[in-house]
Amino acid sequence: MQTKIVTVKLNKHCYDIIIGSGLIAQAVSKIKHYLHQKSSHQIRLAIVTDKNVAAFHLNTLQTKLAENEIYTIPIIVEAGEQSKSFPILQNVIDKILVARLERGDSIIALGGGVIGDLAGFAASIIRRGMHFIQMPTTLLAQIDSSVGGKTGINSPYGKNLIGTFYQPQCVIADTDVLNTLPSREFRAGYAEMVKYGLINQPHFFEWLEKNWQKVFSKGPIQIEAIARSCQFKADIVTHDEHETGQRALLNLGHTFGHMLETATTYDSNRLIHGEAVAIGIILAHQFSEQLNLISPTVTQRIKAHFKTVGLPTQLQDIPGKLPDAETLMTFIAQDKKVSQNNLTFILTRALGQSFIAKNVSPNAVLTFLKQKLMKSD
Amino acid sequence: MQTKIVTVKLNKHCYDIIIGSGLIAQAVSKIKHYLHQKSSHQIRLAIVTDKNVAAFHLNTLQTKLAENEIYTIPIIVEAGEQSKSFPILQNVIDKILVARLERGDSIIALGGGVIGDLAGFAASIIRRGMHFIQMPTTLLAQIDSSVGGKTGINSPYGKNLIGTFYQPQCVIADTDVLNTLPSREFRAGYAEMVKYGLINQPHFFEWLEKNWQKVFSKGPIQIEAIARSCQFKADIVTHDEHETGQRALLNLGHTFGHMLETATTYDSNRLIHGEAVAIGIILAHQFSEQLNLISPTVTQRIKAHFKTVGLPTQLQDIPGKLPDAETLMTFIAQDKKVSQNNLTFILTRALGQSFIAKNVSPNAVLTFLKQKLMKSD
Repeated sequence: MQTKIVTVKLNKHCYDIIIGSGLIAQAVSKIKHYLHQKSSHQIRLAIVTDKNVAAFHLNTLQTKLAENEIYTIPIIVEAGEQSKSFPILQNVIDKILVARLERGDSIIALGGGVIGDLAGFAASIIRRGMHFIQMPTTLLAQIDSSVGGKTGINSPYGKNLIGTFYQPQCVIADTDVLNTLPSREFRAGYAEMVKYGLINQPHFFEWLEKNWQKVFSKGPIQIEAIARSCQFKADIVTHDEHETGQRALLNLGHTFGHMLETATTYDSNRLIHGEAVAIGIILAHQFSEQLNLISPTVTQRIKAHFKTVGLPTQLQDIPGKLPDAETLMTFIAQDKKVSQNNLTFILTRALGQSFIAKNVSPNAVLTFLKQKLMKSD
Repeated sequence: MQTKIVTVKLNKHCYDIIIGSGLIAQAVSKIKHYLHQKSSHQIRLAIVTDKNVAAFHLNTLQTKLAENEIYTIPIIVEAGEQSKSFPILQNVIDKILVARLERGDSIIALGGGVIGDLAGFAASIIRRGMHFIQMPTTLLAQIDSSVGGKTGINSPYGKNLIGTFYQPQCVIADTDVLNTLPSREFRAGYAEMVKYGLINQPHFFEWLEKNWQKVFSKGPIQIEAIARSCQFKADIVTHDEHETGQRALLNLGHTFGHMLETATTYDSNRLIHGEAVAIGIILAHQFSEQLNLISPTVTQRIKAHFKTVGLPTQLQDIPGKLPDAETLMTFIAQDKKVSQNNLTFILTRALGQSFIAKNVSPNAVLTFLKQKLMKSD
């Protein structure tokens, strides 16, 4: 099956995202030239992964590397958002320092967004920067978090408040891993793919409406959808690596989404990131309706597609009780996308015509949230 | 008295080092254009400092800022190397997040190298990068650690093993603070100034030999010496921001120096950084003698100057017992300047002609250390 390559061209650094089937087993050939060959010693690298991913894929990767005389130090953390914390970060760093890995040595992040964020952050601050290779194992990580160089951990005061911009040497997205991904995780990642269409590519949204079943199955259409998503994100990141401008468009659905993740205390039984984004996208469109920016038919069309693929679309789809609107607002205010106490939202003028709206009135948001909590659509 | 400005020109960022008398009191005018003016709100910024510095200078700075309606959040840590740790870092980060400072807001580092490294590291990883202003209050920080953008904390496995390259918005070096600096601290900073001469500016070393008494006193020669030092370091950093090449020359005396700091467990009663560097510089020259690179007269001249100003020059000048040579070697091996198990040292071919020597034999170093432990010069 065809392998696709998307190149991320940044000012001072350029790297490839390689997308295709069977890439974990072929990883050695892809990464070998990034590895620091010691004159008289074995190549050594660390693999940061979580327990779930380790069970499926670690052995394959380690075996293939060992066959090529690359010695690996596996660092296995608990699966889930709680691993993006200071204690776990310190633990990962200590293990890498104890193994005496050096500045030119590499850390592989084998896992989803949590692993990429954690391992990437560790790589960026150990010895002021080690080499770093992403091997994303979820759809979300393959199309979103592994592209663009955001790393970080959570603080008790909010998500991703501590981190760096740090680019990998390369990203290797093996689409075979998606076979072992729970379908709920796949759907959640798919919400971010739809988001790319809704930002400024209505044709991509239409293409997804027609082809989503093939995107959900192994094959060339799936690889194409992932490659198009990576290309889209890479283009935005290329123009705005440090999120001072248009990169903020990628936050479509995310201000409401993060609010919901905080409200559900990141309890994955209730809500996972992509589900929060799906509901957030619908809320951003409904809020745009209220400001007379779009007609309800736009929102309805997106909502219908989310329902078809099995994604939640409203507050009432979240199991359990949510806090009141005033409490939800405090979660928005601590979000790092708040600039100087004016609320910034990504709103939209039509299907696939999103824009950055600054100076959104907190009162208007509060009233809107009260309505949405009151009754389901 | 004249103010001198050294501009650090990096690829993507350019900033000024401002050196002169009375600058803390004038800080507002120097930093105002770096501060994020909120439309309807006060400017707020954090000042990270230590207890010793706070007692002398915090009130002046806060009062001047308050007169200009700039609200400050002071974050005061214990003085000393032990503040470069994960728990203190977390504490600083938490206080900044609790105060709801945002990405465009600033953190001022008011203190010596420890404060600059700690606050700079915090600034680099909070919200993926806040603004950062250095106000160095020791000679060492003014001529060395505040220039060049290295930030970090220590790990149980070694010094500065966790950190980032992160540049400030500006550096404000008020030479008046040097009046309150203990003379031992001043001398230690002076060792780094001598180092700049010994790297590749023999004329600057000669100038220091002649003018050192004026450098040790308030006045234009002191300001000139600091400005020349900053300019020298800025030039090296400009050509090699991320230490992939010639920046390593700045490590003259530091491989032995760090070894001695580890050996004395960073106990400032026994040894402080600049003193370790002074002894390290002499050791690097003596080791160069052994390799027949220089004649003993070069070392003798430097040693005489160090003795004149009151700096230590040999292992026997360190109070207390040192570990044996084998143990000292293990400290060198964990140093981050070790690349791929070959030892790298900065050695010299003449007075002020240092070079990067790779593939130095660990056995030669071991034998040399045994000799030096055995008897004083």
